[in-house]
Amino acid sequence: MAYMTYEHRGARRVGEVQGSALVPLRGLTEIGPETTVEALAEAERDTGGRVEIDAVRLLPVVPNPSKVFCVGLNYREHVTETKRELPTYPVLFPKFADSLLGAYDDIVLPSESTQVDYEGELAVIIGRPGRRIAEADAGEHILGYSTANDITMRDFQYKTHQWMQGKAWQASTPLGPSLVTPTEVDLSTAGIRTVLNGEKVQESDLSMLIFSIPRLIAEISTFTTLAPGDVILTGTPGGVGYRRDPQLFLHDGDQVSVEIDGVGVVRNLVRSEVVPA
Amino acid sequence: MAYMTYEHRGARRVGEVQGSALVPLRGLTEIGPETTVEALAEAERDTGGRVEIDAVRLLPVVPNPSKVFCVGLNYREHVTETKRELPTYPVLFPKFADSLLGAYDDIVLPSESTQVDYEGELAVIIGRPGRRIAEADAGEHILGYSTANDITMRDFQYKTHQWMQGKAWQASTPLGPSLVTPTEVDLSTAGIRTVLNGEKVQESDLSMLIFSIPRLIAEISTFTTLAPGDVILTGTPGGVGYRRDPQLFLHDGDQVSVEIDGVGVVRNLVRSEVVPA
Repeated sequence: MAYMTYEHRGARRVGEVQGSALVPLRGLTEIGPETTVEALAEAERDTGGRVEIDAVRLLPVVPNPSKVFCVGLNYREHVTETKRELPTYPVLFPKFADSLLGAYDDIVLPSESTQVDYEGELAVIIGRPGRRIAEADAGEHILGYSTANDITMRDFQYKTHQWMQGKAWQASTPLGPSLVTPTEVDLSTAGIRTVLNGEKVQESDLSMLIFSIPRLIAEISTFTTLAPGDVILTGTPGGVGYRRDPQLFLHDGDQVSVEIDGVGVVRNLVRSEVVPA
Repeated sequence: MAYMTYEHRGARRVGEVQGSALVPLRGLTEIGPETTVEALAEAERDTGGRVEIDAVRLLPVVPNPSKVFCVGLNYREHVTETKRELPTYPVLFPKFADSLLGAYDDIVLPSESTQVDYEGELAVIIGRPGRRIAEADAGEHILGYSTANDITMRDFQYKTHQWMQGKAWQASTPLGPSLVTPTEVDLSTAGIRTVLNGEKVQESDLSMLIFSIPRLIAEISTFTTLAPGDVILTGTPGGVGYRRDPQLFLHDGDQVSVEIDGVGVVRNLVRSEVVPA
């Protein structure tokens, strides 16, 4: 199954994807802290509310997560391009709920940054609360997967040795379009690609993750409870713009997309911020 | 004025401190995203609900902030003891709502860490939303101040170059006991002290902050909207346990307190986690 969070006629809904349409789930207004594995599976399908995906406004698939964890340096070729050592523990940093965008929303370049970069990533959405989750049990805590572009303001990221101010820009990070349940996708063979203006700029396989999804869930839940709706962005492959020669950043009018086989595509127009005179 | 978030007879309330008692504010259940400057000032005082502070359970003064920003290396003598350069931009990292504790709750040492350290800090609570707030306007966005102990698991903090996994342990960080409104306290002359088992281990003045509170509000709100209930922990003075020779960490039975003149005291018993056999 796949699910989207959307707005239609002023109401916020969660819908099950059925072909080109969404069938709303009664009682759910978004995928989030209340959306356990059971809540999503058992909610009544309101077939009378069926609506075409093209007719709705897609929200970030989890619009208001309590916690968003990002993982740095989790593909070998990306670690190599940054000239760092292979990590022995995942590199973790945050985004906030207000960092997120819908899957097809515009990415607006803030006037303060001249180094806005793409990072295609698989997102894991939690569906069952847990603390100190064993790797062997991690699968039971996954609600599903989604696609994200971990947009990063490099000039802000490297202002200090801590990265938050380059990673947590408001309305920067597309997440969606749908949440795909674990039984629907074989991540061991899925590819991930970032495409900028028709050119492939990142390409890898999810099998190349240094820290597996169960390992990430185990490590993060050591220090905090992973709760339904929490999001883990699992890191980006090599090919980011900052590490290219010459460097490559996003500009007004660019089209950037991140695609993960069997999970989905986020596709965004980049545009400059209009600063009031 | 000073306000506390508390539980009494199963209900959560915000109370105005009047001597040794709390007078609940009608319509408010916690200081948080709904608590603007105006909401706090204008809420009807329910004098019939007056209760002694000793009779209630204090919660973190903001129990569910959307965002908690922490500032590292913001006192000169703490920068010196870490042997780092003076920063030119604030070092920022996160905690989560579930990282917080009440002002007098026990600090439970997790079984995974052997290097749990104290960091006494002033907390700023936001009361008016804003993005790209000018330093000159920052004061209008402050709801008030509180006291925190930015408890840090040093062995986890330094697992990688990013600090989150050492800073965001669940139920680790006392915040309270009250929120004190800006007109009630002169921070330019206020001292801050951390006391461990009767011995002063940190002592400084809030006038020693490298990045002032208006500067922090301006820098953070450059990349994200500061919203009511958001918390900024403004950094810790020198004297942390990790940088002492010999090093000093928290142990079962310790009493640790952080005091800020005119703002308040958080005082906590440290105890080992009881791990089920």
